[in-house]
Amino acid sequence: MATNKSAGLQDIIAGETAISTVGKEGVGLTYRGYSIEDLAEKSTFEQVAFLLIDGHLPNASELETYQERLVRHRELPLDLKTILEQLPGNTHPMDVLRTGCSALGNLEPEGAAHNAVSIAHRLVACFGSILLYWHRFCASGERIELTSDEKTVAGHFLRLLHGGMPVPEHRRMLDVSLILYAEHEFNASTFTARVIASTLSDFYSAVTGAIGALRGPLHGGANEMAMELISRFKTSDDAEKGVLQMLAKKEKIMGFGHRIYKVADPRSDIIKDWARKLCESADRMELFNIAERIEQVIRREKKLFPNLDFYSAVTYHLAGLPTPMFTPLFVFARIAGWAAHILEQRADNRLIRPAAEYTGPAPRPYVPIAQR
Amino acid sequence: MATNKSAGLQDIIAGETAISTVGKEGVGLTYRGYSIEDLAEKSTFEQVAFLLIDGHLPNASELETYQERLVRHRELPLDLKTILEQLPGNTHPMDVLRTGCSALGNLEPEGAAHNAVSIAHRLVACFGSILLYWHRFCASGERIELTSDEKTVAGHFLRLLHGGMPVPEHRRMLDVSLILYAEHEFNASTFTARVIASTLSDFYSAVTGAIGALRGPLHGGANEMAMELISRFKTSDDAEKGVLQMLAKKEKIMGFGHRIYKVADPRSDIIKDWARKLCESADRMELFNIAERIEQVIRREKKLFPNLDFYSAVTYHLAGLPTPMFTPLFVFARIAGWAAHILEQRADNRLIRPAAEYTGPAPRPYVPIAQR
Repeated sequence: MATNKSAGLQDIIAGETAISTVGKEGVGLTYRGYSIEDLAEKSTFEQVAFLLIDGHLPNASELETYQERLVRHRELPLDLKTILEQLPGNTHPMDVLRTGCSALGNLEPEGAAHNAVSIAHRLVACFGSILLYWHRFCASGERIELTSDEKTVAGHFLRLLHGGMPVPEHRRMLDVSLILYAEHEFNASTFTARVIASTLSDFYSAVTGAIGALRGPLHGGANEMAMELISRFKTSDDAEKGVLQMLAKKEKIMGFGHRIYKVADPRSDIIKDWARKLCESADRMELFNIAERIEQVIRREKKLFPNLDFYSAVTYHLAGLPTPMFTPLFVFARIAGWAAHILEQRADNRLIRPAAEYTGPAPRPYVPIAQR
Repeated sequence: MATNKSAGLQDIIAGETAISTVGKEGVGLTYRGYSIEDLAEKSTFEQVAFLLIDGHLPNASELETYQERLVRHRELPLDLKTILEQLPGNTHPMDVLRTGCSALGNLEPEGAAHNAVSIAHRLVACFGSILLYWHRFCASGERIELTSDEKTVAGHFLRLLHGGMPVPEHRRMLDVSLILYAEHEFNASTFTARVIASTLSDFYSAVTGAIGALRGPLHGGANEMAMELISRFKTSDDAEKGVLQMLAKKEKIMGFGHRIYKVADPRSDIIKDWARKLCESADRMELFNIAERIEQVIRREKKLFPNLDFYSAVTYHLAGLPTPMFTPLFVFARIAGWAAHILEQRADNRLIRPAAEYTGPAPRPYVPIAQR
């Protein structure tokens, strides 16, 4: 019989994980024991993806092999390109990734030729290609090349997006951002991936479901809504006034607070520093000041701290990313965490199938249609 | 702090539902208060889908309107057909439905033009079209008509599959089967749909994820594996011998037992009667006897009862359904339950985000790459 109950499964332990710690005592984040501060300062996304999926930091030769592998896997099958060309230009980019990932599962299914780890690396390498092939085809009818001599996921994405050499500061900011977004324990999308994996379904099914979950405004969609908010205001005084009005009307403001973190989101300080740096370089300090004023008002009025999504919006905007691509960037990072969790779920699997409390009608006799 | 723990969330209440009761005291199934026995005997799948999604049994005029609507929504957009034509003939049919559903979300996105309920009905109407357009295109290069004068989901599917008028007994068996498979509380695929919906993501994302979960052999895949088992044997004595050997080797036998039901699966008796009936009509009683002998051996040796999947395999086989379509049939039915649960989750939403128990490495200093 069902014995325990918690709305939204808050505080219910749904399983074990050795991948990350989130908010122990309400603060802090580690990936396989390494602090997010160290990883953001000293590592690269490729090393972090390897760490999450393979379980340890790569040595120089492993890293080189891994990076070469990622570079090789950027190209897409022709049939997938044809599929992407059928998707309308005004569709949500997350829906493009969801369909692209699912379709790749038709074309390169898990099995003898493609095992789970190789699919994980394939998706780390090619999500940017899927998004930008579609984007550039819809925007200009161009069938772009999906290869480049950029060595990193971040650099490759910027190159495909803008067509030229990325600004080094943008490339490194995006690299750090991918590190920060790569993994976060049993968040809703990762938990979705684990529930799907727990039926022993295939790798693509788990990732496709996770993309669908991440798409929601209560999860990945928050950074897009943060940008929408920030860009409403021309000055920080405007922002103060506007946010106070929103609070008075009890409107929801995205990018603040967190289900698990109680004191602060450790990733926010890191990305806030990058936001300041990029605003300085671009001579756009007013944008930073607006964002910071919003932060101050929300801290003062609601006692809430910014989470990773809030200042990420500023950094992405300054790197020239269209707002609808903010959540897809989250996918490019989180695929590393999802992959690690799918592998972990499979290694000690048990079907995830909770109970429900019934609140519906008592048993009743069937009513023939003539009597309804 | 996390306080409760249960492997696979067994016995953990993840939320409330007014849609169905599953296994109260280990037995029984009702949809919105009506017993599964009554529904299977007296109702039709279209009435049951309406009941689940709209909350009450339709009267004669509501049912007529609803059936006309389903008939109108069988056609697919040309772009979706082009997408389906890119999917290889040897891909898993569940992967076709997953990609087809996701792509329809690109072409007819949720929003002003398509609300959640209309998408629910659209998917009830067109999943069969998606599967069979692809199937017939791959099998013979034909671009089949997706309309027919068949009034029911079951009849339409059989018509598209075989090209001629369905055998009435097959049509009604399939109709009953769709009723039996339509809804089952917080099973893994429905729970997946609710987790995705809880981020406030769109309707298609939730359904696409659910298809991915249902695909797994621990969930929807079981009826295909039951057929594979049954068709290994030529006689019931063969079956007895073979199953005893499998048990001795501790091989897993699908189609028996259930996480929630402890005594019996109430749906199994209903579909077993249909299996007997169809075997009699087709003069294939040996097939029924083989299945029944497997049931007897598993009951005797393992104290396990057959679940819905076991005899469903026999009925589908006799209606001429290729085995890889067994799990897709489950989708055509369960979309009604998924839709009801997505609507219910949205009506009183809270993000579903459980906790995890950390078993990984303690905090450790970052190691520079040269020292790894």
